[in-house]
Amino acid sequence: MSGRFSFNQATARDWPLPDLVAGCAAAGVRGIGLWREQAREFGLERTAALVGEAGLAVTSLCRGGFFNHPDWYDDNRSAIEEAAIVDAPVLVLVAGGLPAGSRDLDAARAHVGEAIGKLVPHALATGVRLALEPLHPMFCADRCVVSTLDQALDLVEPYPPEAAGVVVDTYHLWWDDRVWDAIARAGAADRIACFQVADWVTPLPAGALLGRALPGDGCVDLRRFRRAVDSAGYDGPVEVEVFSANVWSRPGPEVLDAALRGYRTHVAD
Amino acid sequence: MSGRFSFNQATARDWPLPDLVAGCAAAGVRGIGLWREQAREFGLERTAALVGEAGLAVTSLCRGGFFNHPDWYDDNRSAIEEAAIVDAPVLVLVAGGLPAGSRDLDAARAHVGEAIGKLVPHALATGVRLALEPLHPMFCADRCVVSTLDQALDLVEPYPPEAAGVVVDTYHLWWDDRVWDAIARAGAADRIACFQVADWVTPLPAGALLGRALPGDGCVDLRRFRRAVDSAGYDGPVEVEVFSANVWSRPGPEVLDAALRGYRTHVAD
Repeated sequence: MSGRFSFNQATARDWPLPDLVAGCAAAGVRGIGLWREQAREFGLERTAALVGEAGLAVTSLCRGGFFNHPDWYDDNRSAIEEAAIVDAPVLVLVAGGLPAGSRDLDAARAHVGEAIGKLVPHALATGVRLALEPLHPMFCADRCVVSTLDQALDLVEPYPPEAAGVVVDTYHLWWDDRVWDAIARAGAADRIACFQVADWVTPLPAGALLGRALPGDGCVDLRRFRRAVDSAGYDGPVEVEVFSANVWSRPGPEVLDAALRGYRTHVAD
Repeated sequence: MSGRFSFNQATARDWPLPDLVAGCAAAGVRGIGLWREQAREFGLERTAALVGEAGLAVTSLCRGGFFNHPDWYDDNRSAIEEAAIVDAPVLVLVAGGLPAGSRDLDAARAHVGEAIGKLVPHALATGVRLALEPLHPMFCADRCVVSTLDQALDLVEPYPPEAAGVVVDTYHLWWDDRVWDAIARAGAADRIACFQVADWVTPLPAGALLGRALPGDGCVDLRRFRRAVDSAGYDGPVEVEVFSANVWSRPGPEVLDAALRGYRTHVAD
């Protein structure tokens, strides 16, 4: 068995969903993180049935957000519905970058909080918890104006914890000396909706997006993060989510095996 | 005239120093930022004479630091001496990344503070002010473990302000919602030793180092930064320092002209 380990399907992007689900079940994995594009492509109800029949639980659906896009409201309404259909308890929100031509970061961040507020009633109605994810500051301009865990906590604070929490992702937060206090704050307020693990390696590739590493292959003290979220009262899944051109070039079963080994050696106690 | 504008030579890396100095003087520029490698190559005394005879002031020398290297002490002693010879009032310190194989960011950061302490007597003896530069968190692993202005301020706090200050660089700090308070803190403690300006554009190139933009070509509210350092009591040079493969491919005089225009339009009042 693999305890709290969950395998995010983005880690083995090109592994067909039925094979990925069978591989996880065979390895004793209990949880799986899904992506909207792949789930829609396979069919939402069909995805839910496949995962459920294999005895797996969906731990999260990625992703809503991108509140700088004109159609953000409709798209996020759809994302919440999709999460409900695949039985994902959590919808991960990536806030989106600055609007084109804007230099007003404060306004963009404030808009994220207001947008979440408009989605909260739908989250409560469906039982899907929104999870705002701070992304590494290198993505601030073009992908996510929410750059620290404290910012994310400030933005969800006006809303009920069962409707709006945060994602703690080691890859995005490892550099921040204030993250330990922020994790304690998040736990005390019952805001930790999702815990994701990836490791940091250099040099960054062009565009910076696909440069993550499997747990243990980089320089992040992953176990310190896992202990910190535990100490803050979080006892949910530990999702390994790695976007990496290098990892994607490897066969799915090998990636799952390496992710499990990295988890056991560098994350779990 | 160009007021407080200073032209960092790294912005036009391949412009020979005599031409760069003549170009700055002809444009009414009063300040120039130097790099150790180029100054040594041209000759330190010869560099000082060239710059002085053109009526320019050296505003900073880049760079010491890299305290994770085994020879950091000797190298930084040399850097301080070199700064004194070229009449640079400020030596910029880039802290260096994690030691090879280490995941202990706290220890690496603490070491930076201790290392600066060992250099302070030499700074006081030569009149060269050390300026610790927080770099963008995307450089935390391999280039600079000091990622925020508050961290830099914490690390120099034990030492006299005339010996140890900080660099405020818009490119590295623009994403941080706490930077405005940190700039006020830095000014109140007389720690702003250097103010550098570059703009942020995406996508980042591989390695992330050479992706900056000239003032006004990106998404940073540069004028807000200049007003913030002014409000904090800083009245020193405003150095345009842009590392960019795109900018380096343009002729030096054109780059200086574009930097001046960007400064006047997007930084100065």
